[in-house]
Amino acid sequence: MDRNALIDILGKVRSGEIDGEAASDAIEALTYEDIGFARVDHARAHRQGFPEVIYGEGKSSDQIVGILAKLLDTAPNLLVTRTSESVFNEVKGLMPDAEWHPSARLIRIMRDDTERGIGDIAIVTAGTTDIPVAEEAALTAEAMGNRVTRIWDAGVAGIHRILSQRETLRDARVVVVAAGMEGALPSVVGGLVAVPVIAVPTSVGYGMSLNGVAAVLGMLNSCSSNVTVVNVDNGFGAGFVASLINRKWTPPAK
Amino acid sequence: MDRNALIDILGKVRSGEIDGEAASDAIEALTYEDIGFARVDHARAHRQGFPEVIYGEGKSSDQIVGILAKLLDTAPNLLVTRTSESVFNEVKGLMPDAEWHPSARLIRIMRDDTERGIGDIAIVTAGTTDIPVAEEAALTAEAMGNRVTRIWDAGVAGIHRILSQRETLRDARVVVVAAGMEGALPSVVGGLVAVPVIAVPTSVGYGMSLNGVAAVLGMLNSCSSNVTVVNVDNGFGAGFVASLINRKWTPPAK
Amino acid sequence: MDRNALIDILGKVRSGEIDGEAASDAIEALTYEDIGFARVDHARAHRQGFPEVIYGEGKSSDQIVGILAKLLDTAPNLLVTRTSESVFNEVKGLMPDAEWHPSARLIRIMRDDTERGIGDIAIVTAGTTDIPVAEEAALTAEAMGNRVTRIWDAGVAGIHRILSQRETLRDARVVVVAAGMEGALPSVVGGLVAVPVIAVPTSVGYGMSLNGVAAVLGMLNSCSSNVTVVNVDNGFGAGFVASLINRKWTPPAK
Amino acid sequence: MDRNALIDILGKVRSGEIDGEAASDAIEALTYEDIGFARVDHARAHRQGFPEVIYGEGKSSDQIVGILAKLLDTAPNLLVTRTSESVFNEVKGLMPDAEWHPSARLIRIMRDDTERGIGDIAIVTAGTTDIPVAEEAALTAEAMGNRVTRIWDAGVAGIHRILSQRETLRDARVVVVAAGMEGALPSVVGGLVAVPVIAVPTSVGYGMSLNGVAAVLGMLNSCSSNVTVVNVDNGFGAGFVASLINRKWTPPAK
Amino acid sequence: MDRNALIDILGKVRSGEIDGEAASDAIEALTYEDIGFARVDHARAHRQGFPEVIYGEGKSSDQIVGILAKLLDTAPNLLVTRTSESVFNEVKGLMPDAEWHPSARLIRIMRDDTERGIGDIAIVTAGTTDIPVAEEAALTAEAMGNRVTRIWDAGVAGIHRILSQRETLRDARVVVVAAGMEGALPSVVGGLVAVPVIAVPTSVGYGMSLNGVAAVLGMLNSCSSNVTVVNVDNGFGAGFVASLINRKWTPPAK
Amino acid sequence: MDRNALIDILGKVRSGEIDGEAASDAIEALTYEDIGFARVDHARAHRQGFPEVIYGEGKSSDQIVGILAKLLDTAPNLLVTRTSESVFNEVKGLMPDAEWHPSARLIRIMRDDTERGIGDIAIVTAGTTDIPVAEEAALTAEAMGNRVTRIWDAGVAGIHRILSQRETLRDARVVVVAAGMEGALPSVVGGLVAVPVIAVPTSVGYGMSLNGVAAVLGMLNSCSSNVTVVNVDNGFGAGFVASLINRKWTPPAK
Amino acid sequence: MDRNALIDILGKVRSGEIDGEAASDAIEALTYEDIGFARVDHARAHRQGFPEVIYGEGKSSDQIVGILAKLLDTAPNLLVTRTSESVFNEVKGLMPDAEWHPSARLIRIMRDDTERGIGDIAIVTAGTTDIPVAEEAALTAEAMGNRVTRIWDAGVAGIHRILSQRETLRDARVVVVAAGMEGALPSVVGGLVAVPVIAVPTSVGYGMSLNGVAAVLGMLNSCSSNVTVVNVDNGFGAGFVASLINRKWTPPAK
Amino acid sequence: MDRNALIDILGKVRSGEIDGEAASDAIEALTYEDIGFARVDHARAHRQGFPEVIYGEGKSSDQIVGILAKLLDTAPNLLVTRTSESVFNEVKGLMPDAEWHPSARLIRIMRDDTERGIGDIAIVTAGTTDIPVAEEAALTAEAMGNRVTRIWDAGVAGIHRILSQRETLRDARVVVVAAGMEGALPSVVGGLVAVPVIAVPTSVGYGMSLNGVAAVLGMLNSCSSNVTVVNVDNGFGAGFVASLINRKWTPPAK
Repeated sequence: MDRNALIDILGKVRSGEIDGEAASDAIEALTYEDIGFARVDHARAHRQGFPEVIYGEGKSSDQIVGILAKLLDTAPNLLVTRTSESVFNEVKGLMPDAEWHPSARLIRIMRDDTERGIGDIAIVTAGTTDIPVAEEAALTAEAMGNRVTRIWDAGVAGIHRILSQRETLRDARVVVVAAGMEGALPSVVGGLVAVPVIAVPTSVGYGMSLNGVAAVLGMLNSCSSNVTVVNVDNGFGAGFVASLINRKWTPPAK
Repeated sequence: MDRNALIDILGKVRSGEIDGEAASDAIEALTYEDIGFARVDHARAHRQGFPEVIYGEGKSSDQIVGILAKLLDTAPNLLVTRTSESVFNEVKGLMPDAEWHPSARLIRIMRDDTERGIGDIAIVTAGTTDIPVAEEAALTAEAMGNRVTRIWDAGVAGIHRILSQRETLRDARVVVVAAGMEGALPSVVGGLVAVPVIAVPTSVGYGMSLNGVAAVLGMLNSCSSNVTVVNVDNGFGAGFVASLINRKWTPPAK
Repeated sequence: MDRNALIDILGKVRSGEIDGEAASDAIEALTYEDIGFARVDHARAHRQGFPEVIYGEGKSSDQIVGILAKLLDTAPNLLVTRTSESVFNEVKGLMPDAEWHPSARLIRIMRDDTERGIGDIAIVTAGTTDIPVAEEAALTAEAMGNRVTRIWDAGVAGIHRILSQRETLRDARVVVVAAGMEGALPSVVGGLVAVPVIAVPTSVGYGMSLNGVAAVLGMLNSCSSNVTVVNVDNGFGAGFVASLINRKWTPPAK
Repeated sequence: MDRNALIDILGKVRSGEIDGEAASDAIEALTYEDIGFARVDHARAHRQGFPEVIYGEGKSSDQIVGILAKLLDTAPNLLVTRTSESVFNEVKGLMPDAEWHPSARLIRIMRDDTERGIGDIAIVTAGTTDIPVAEEAALTAEAMGNRVTRIWDAGVAGIHRILSQRETLRDARVVVVAAGMEGALPSVVGGLVAVPVIAVPTSVGYGMSLNGVAAVLGMLNSCSSNVTVVNVDNGFGAGFVASLINRKWTPPAK
Repeated sequence: MDRNALIDILGKVRSGEIDGEAASDAIEALTYEDIGFARVDHARAHRQGFPEVIYGEGKSSDQIVGILAKLLDTAPNLLVTRTSESVFNEVKGLMPDAEWHPSARLIRIMRDDTERGIGDIAIVTAGTTDIPVAEEAALTAEAMGNRVTRIWDAGVAGIHRILSQRETLRDARVVVVAAGMEGALPSVVGGLVAVPVIAVPTSVGYGMSLNGVAAVLGMLNSCSSNVTVVNVDNGFGAGFVASLINRKWTPPAK
Repeated sequence: MDRNALIDILGKVRSGEIDGEAASDAIEALTYEDIGFARVDHARAHRQGFPEVIYGEGKSSDQIVGILAKLLDTAPNLLVTRTSESVFNEVKGLMPDAEWHPSARLIRIMRDDTERGIGDIAIVTAGTTDIPVAEEAALTAEAMGNRVTRIWDAGVAGIHRILSQRETLRDARVVVVAAGMEGALPSVVGGLVAVPVIAVPTSVGYGMSLNGVAAVLGMLNSCSSNVTVVNVDNGFGAGFVASLINRKWTPPAK
Repeated sequence: MDRNALIDILGKVRSGEIDGEAASDAIEALTYEDIGFARVDHARAHRQGFPEVIYGEGKSSDQIVGILAKLLDTAPNLLVTRTSESVFNEVKGLMPDAEWHPSARLIRIMRDDTERGIGDIAIVTAGTTDIPVAEEAALTAEAMGNRVTRIWDAGVAGIHRILSQRETLRDARVVVVAAGMEGALPSVVGGLVAVPVIAVPTSVGYGMSLNGVAAVLGMLNSCSSNVTVVNVDNGFGAGFVASLINRKWTPPAK
Repeated sequence: MDRNALIDILGKVRSGEIDGEAASDAIEALTYEDIGFARVDHARAHRQGFPEVIYGEGKSSDQIVGILAKLLDTAPNLLVTRTSESVFNEVKGLMPDAEWHPSARLIRIMRDDTERGIGDIAIVTAGTTDIPVAEEAALTAEAMGNRVTRIWDAGVAGIHRILSQRETLRDARVVVVAAGMEGALPSVVGGLVAVPVIAVPTSVGYGMSLNGVAAVLGMLNSCSSNVTVVNVDNGFGAGFVASLINRKWTPPAK
């Protein structure tokens, strides 16, 4: 709990500025606000560049538009992931500046383009079928104030494809790698750079790819120590974490 | 490839300063040095604070001492993970400044304590049995120049234990969370902070914990978007990535 | 076997009140009635507040209506789970007091609202997508004579959401928690209360949630000792067991 | 948060009875005490019949004795699970009233035998090899103030064995069933009683029993709606939940 | 190889009755006919009561009719499994005596009703949703010359249902049990009879039934030693093996 | 229930031959004796050639000898499976006619060698490492009154090995096939004979044999319809079922 | 790197024939061309008989035609796998010599029929439902300049079917075997030949075939040492590797 | 069957050179010799360079020496895999030219060093812990008459390590790649060469490597089409198949 704020309230109680009831409310508010930083204090989150995100899967067009309508005034940047063009068409009526990204099946509204990263985020895919997931990561990272470099179709079976991108990779503060099938690319990329690599397994593949399980296992067992893993097809999560890594950060005053 | 260095060599060829044979060698060296940054150029890696790491499992005492002997002169900081006290006793003869960390079963030699992080790394465990894995992460992070805050035994079944550490958590640039069994703690921690959380599943548990598989699945499915995952019991990897996230970084000159 | 009833029959045999054939029938009836309490003796079950339940999945509209028609006279309360609005529309013609619960896809007919619980049942979900399963539990518990408190969308990534409900949770005699993805919420709730927690894994999630397997594993490995688990999406079972726990119970006379 | 206690503190602040610093401490204590009922307030937990439990696996004899020594004064009842006779021998020196239960590999100290249950708890095993797990459940339930009825070796391949216990089963307020291999017994028992059945899968079996996975799956898919499941070999958990179900309970005053 | 037949051919070679070419052909025919009893010699198979079976899944109506047309003259009994009513309608034009069994989705043509079993085959289901699989077994067994007793909906949650059928079960030479979910019924039936029990796991269930995997595991781990298992939903296989067990058999003359 | 026996008791009640108390006992005995044929009525089981079987795994030498001592007088044939030579040495003191079978790790006592089969049982292994499991099946079948033909090391990689045994296989009333690794042999044998094939997966193999799981899957998916499967390494079960199939059987009088 | 080519470039630099910029480009090209033989230098690949292959799954008709149009001039042989007849109809307009293979759902264009194999490739299926996968392998092998012998429907349940093909199998330089269900055929074929066997598991089967997992496990555990395995349904890969094995090959000049 | 040999026998029958009995024997011998090429005709196998191989795991020293003693006279080359130095010491007494290979735990006797390959076999490992498996492959290939190039410790995390071996790799007729953990190296190697790559997953790793399952999945899903897979740790199989691919082969005369 924020002790200073608490003592401040208590001071007002003592001085009679506020009564017990009001003080109770204030203290309870303090308690809850205190827990769960980003989610509770929307205003603060937005000021710090966290977009509002709606997971579109299983939500009706009406539901999405309804949620967006409420967020419209406060949230500068908005993402709707895993949605469809028909939803976009309805959203567009409400928010003319909404963008439709067909590959990632994502709606984005960007009103705040403050740059918040200290470097670039490189996003790489093994194949062209991994692009939708990678694109979700890229659009998320951009919405959080990052410059993104896209490197598509650089899988390990043609190793020159990723090697020819070495300089770009090494300029990045963090790298996201999306790969399905055997999920080998993050290990190779991890060996080329000295920064964190976020591996996103994709459900690309067939047979023993087991809908992404093979890629997950491959990535968790990576022989490169700088690789961490998110859930299958979780491009949003990868872009989100990459943004947190890249963002300018100053230690808290004590 | 480093184009400037290449053109430089070519200039020397043209001027006759070096002959074709020597130029070939130089260009090939350029090619290979160019690939795999941290691993090839040990000197550079050490200057940047990367320790030498020996994975002790399955290596004999002789093998470990042998490797250490070679690294002694060049590597300022050294780690031997997953080893035993008897190995340490032999190492100690060779390197009197070696430290033995029984919980993590890790030998550490620290000669370079340059601070390389921009903030603190918080390392949290769900239970006391997760401490060896967390301690491996902590010792690694320290060897890479970071200040580490340890928060042990803060599992979700007694939620006040982690909540009472909120301020410490929020001061951190990155948080590592080690948990076995259901692996729920990273999600809770992830909701309390606005920085990356590295989740380390541990093999702690029995029955349907399936030696850490349950924790892996729990963490990959985390409802907190800032959570990424490493392999079961991979404390070293978690500490390594956390260090990369926390380290001072300047964009490359172009 | 009910020894008193048996001796009674034998007395009648001896007295010649009934013949051997009739006695045989009566004794066999005694045997079978004796086995499987709730299911055989519908009247007794209904008097004790057990509703009739039809598992709707895979049953045609005609089949469901046919079964309902037979139960109409005897069963005070009836549930049809996993059904559809079109089935409801047919049922409604037959039973005008039938209720349609779209979220849970459940038809309920409540004619007996005797209160049979000694306290409240709290039912909690981690996310909004878990509500259909939780609602099935809630409607079942109500049909069995319980007061239910619903707490929706209190997942662990925003820990304040569940903490703000502590008092409600502690007033409950038993808590049902429905969660998908990593299934972490039951552990947190389990730590907040001193009563049984019934965890219902849901198939909510994607990728490595493996259609609820991740949540099942998480819940079976819960570090809170008061948590037990039912099958994926089995809201009915959770509501049923919660009702059995909450119901007024008197030890059998001996 | 306990609003009355809070207002009480505020009243004292206003009246100057306590200063801001002390009030801050009191409010923070209120907050944390408030979270995690049973664990924080040991005294209250003990008054309500919750024993102290030490999970012995992986703990040294010294560690266990050390923990016990601290708990000796306050905790009336104590359990050490998954331990060994050699540990017991050391404990015995410290606490002469300690009991050793070889089958369950459990040390128990019972000083408070207040009866806290409203009925009996029946504990059943499918085979004799399931007894250690069931005995752990039984000893736990007894330590929590319950009368326990043990029914050993009543597996479904000889169905008369469980049927001959029908009356005993029906007298129970809750039934615990421990079974390995196919884990079928809970379904049969579930059909015989109208109370909750806690199913404990055991690791008994070989080959495709997969160390208890087959039993877990069988129990989660039980066709009896009153069955819930705990982790493999988790006798303690089963006894704990059964005790919570059986315990006398009065609704909170409002 | 049939040595008598071979010597017979050789005799004819020696006597000049057939030439080398013809003898070679005859000997090769002998070799291949010799391998794979039932399949090669259709006439012999049919005389012994083996029906022709067409696995309908994935075959077009035309393909099935085409195969049937060829078999029409020689095979007395025919089965088409996993097919549809529309296929049946075409078949019916070709073979007016074809029967359509909607529950099992099976077409049957029976022209030979010789009784070939020494006793009855009892076929049991746990629930009503298991009937299609059980019916496939029953229809197969009948087509192979067996008397079949059907016992539907006798699952273990209402144990009296199967117990009331004890006498019928004990009259059977072999019992087939189809069950989904936890697959517990075969174990109970196995304990009631002293003959082989063929367990057919069905894909009935949801969640952790994992499309029949739970039932397979349950049945393979049966504590009744007379239980063997076939593939999920393989009613045909169960009926086939049961018929082989029940059939009159005389030891080969030597 | 045995209706004739029941009417007989009732007659005695009516005639006053027995009183109500005695009649109650007799009827209850009738009920329980009636359930679970083979297990309850040991005398009848033994007369019909069922041996007593002790599963030795996890039982101490004392326990086994203790059980055997009780069975000595009544059971003609006895098996102790999964035991050790040291146990045998103790048993031998008690029962000098006990046999030790080192390969199967099985103790056998055979006093009744009545032939109860109508044909031979062929038992086949794929490799030599499968022999222990197959031998357990063979010794069991012999103890149940069967003639057994052993065919060892006839795996599919050298197909002539099994083909050269065709005539032996075809003389058998039932075939048991033990195989590890890919578990392919039962399918081949199944195609060669027209009788039931009991497939016993063994844990022989390494890597992706997954301790017998690969063999189980192979056998359940057998393309030969006469194959059924028992648990991994369950030689006893296979021999038991094979004996039930082979045994002389007469339909019950009605 | 090709040292001769490099020295050649350096010679030109020295002689002033090319400047530093051009030399840099040439050396970089040398580096990348050097990595990833077949893929980079299309012309060389085509000269050596490697066809262009388009994986059709998930690609639109337009995309496929677009890619084909680009390859038209340079690639003599082309394959589109996992496509549909409607795509073929569009392709046909563009390339009248395109062939449609409905079973394999594959479009092939063959303009270069140079024979490149030293022997035949035999391709075998266990059942008729495995043919599409096997046909994909066959068409691929033909497009790479091989003579292919097709042996369909020779599964192990009728062992004579594969034995009757022994001579054909033994004439082959390499054998491909496609099988679903238990995947046993490769082991049998492996035992009949002294050349490599490429096993292709297919997703044919139901229940515990687990969409090909059972076949994969069976094949990886093959007791025939000459068997290697590719992914489920990967007919293309099998045909590709078989072609590499069969192709005329001369050791590189040194 | 060998038709010429058969006609030859028949000719002798006709001419009376041999009688019917002898002819029967000869024809049966023809049949069996005909099936299972390499295994039956040891002499022929040895002439063609197939060594005798004894799988040592689970075999006693006596058993191995016993088998070797029998093979001594006929087999030029012999391998004992998965054995121990103590077995070697006994073997050495019998066969002084036996070699002990400690890394692979393999005994080899080489008396025939005829070169039978048309090129080299390259064998690669990802890490040093994969060497034992790779060495088993190498020693096998050498025993079958191949020149082997060993490339150790060239894992993908340091991509320059494998790239620096490109020329060696491209000189090879076939490449074997042993890798544990994520199993990514075969894909990279597959992209560098135009010959078959045999991937050997190893059990090297921890946690989610699941004892080699992760590597198996990675390799089966390889994006390089020239990769096939053998069982975990199956170095022998990999060396065996590589030898079959590399061996000089001439098409059979027709």
